[in-house]
Amino acid sequence: MYVYGRNVARDLLINHQKIEKAILQDDFREKELISLLENAKIPMEFTSKREMDRLSNGVHQGIILSIPDYQYHDLDSILLSQEDDVVVILDHLEDPHNLGAIIRTCEAAGIRSIILPKDRQVQVNATVMKTSAGTLSSMNLVSVSNIASSIDRLKEVGYWIVGTSLENSVDYREVDYQGKICIVIGNEGSGISQLVSKKCDFLVKIPMYGKTNSLNASVAAGIMIYEVIRNRK
Amino acid sequence: MYVYGRNVARDLLINHQKIEKAILQDDFREKELISLLENAKIPMEFTSKREMDRLSNGVHQGIILSIPDYQYHDLDSILLSQEDDVVVILDHLEDPHNLGAIIRTCEAAGIRSIILPKDRQVQVNATVMKTSAGTLSSMNLVSVSNIASSIDRLKEVGYWIVGTSLENSVDYREVDYQGKICIVIGNEGSGISQLVSKKCDFLVKIPMYGKTNSLNASVAAGIMIYEVIRNRK
Repeated sequence: MYVYGRNVARDLLINHQKIEKAILQDDFREKELISLLENAKIPMEFTSKREMDRLSNGVHQGIILSIPDYQYHDLDSILLSQEDDVVVILDHLEDPHNLGAIIRTCEAAGIRSIILPKDRQVQVNATVMKTSAGTLSSMNLVSVSNIASSIDRLKEVGYWIVGTSLENSVDYREVDYQGKICIVIGNEGSGISQLVSKKCDFLVKIPMYGKTNSLNASVAAGIMIYEVIRNRK
Repeated sequence: MYVYGRNVARDLLINHQKIEKAILQDDFREKELISLLENAKIPMEFTSKREMDRLSNGVHQGIILSIPDYQYHDLDSILLSQEDDVVVILDHLEDPHNLGAIIRTCEAAGIRSIILPKDRQVQVNATVMKTSAGTLSSMNLVSVSNIASSIDRLKEVGYWIVGTSLENSVDYREVDYQGKICIVIGNEGSGISQLVSKKCDFLVKIPMYGKTNSLNASVAAGIMIYEVIRNRK
């Protein structure tokens, strides 16, 4: 996977993350980054701005790093670790900024496990890396083929499933979030799917007082996650 | 100002917003949008994909609209209206996605006024329009030359100023948010400025339990705003 930009590169280098090679623009002259690359013995290639633009598809600031693809965890290893009393499920999110911001919020809130579907869901890419602000390495992202059957598995081991939904739902502050809790965050446009919604033990909504009937997905996730955290402490 | 993309165009047309002209890609064939443009008697120009790419600087999907620049309000007209018991100040935000998401959250929470500085602050642009999901038209955005003196003005008319800060701050849930409240949200990297921080009546922080010490600015704003709303209801 290619990631790019000076801040992302600096973060990865300072935190000694595995980097396969660096691709630099012909006229790249950032001494600090070059010396970090040299010290870590990362192979460097130089190429044209045009080729950099093509490879990065974004604002690369003259530096692109090739790093190993994110290694997803599997659900049973998370459940076996018995560590995580709160997990988050993402039901087919589309926007990498939202995925990155949710990873960052979970890390800040002390939640380590996020479950996301393999298909029709944005995966970890360069934008997610950047938006998650260096928190990805301390998280367990779990990739599953089927959200509904993962929910069944979570229920078997005692999780309560809380989904956000505008219909048939109660105010998000009215639910008791003690015990093992799984928060389901829906797709940006269509929310959580009907099948998943039916499997939830509680459906909750964040009250709104304007003409809009939805919040940005990462903002809604942040409000929900901090409500759960507050309720448990 | 140019805005672009099919959803943005559809929203503006359906809500009868003022559109100066439409610039369409030579092979643009979306019947619904073309008939909306024809019914609203919007002048249409056709041009090459290359020229569209140059004008939009983003994913235009074959349609760019030229609309009047956003007309900012002034602080005194907001204060005179006596309507707004909660206002939000943005202390030099940089990212248009954050500005758009905060506008959307404020609208959903029933907050109408957002104060932002003229300089070193992202202004309303195409990305903000898109991220705010059609809520901009019901909001009062106030542009000011000086945040510190705007805070003085707000204090004169009885607002309590609440800033978010990691230092010298209390848990955000410990403050009583009754009365006239002004929430200050800081810059993505550096937070709120020292001068502004000194003018706050309360400094609050959202507790974090991971290794990261900050949330995405729009997520932090969302958590703060909904805490204030909940505390007041």
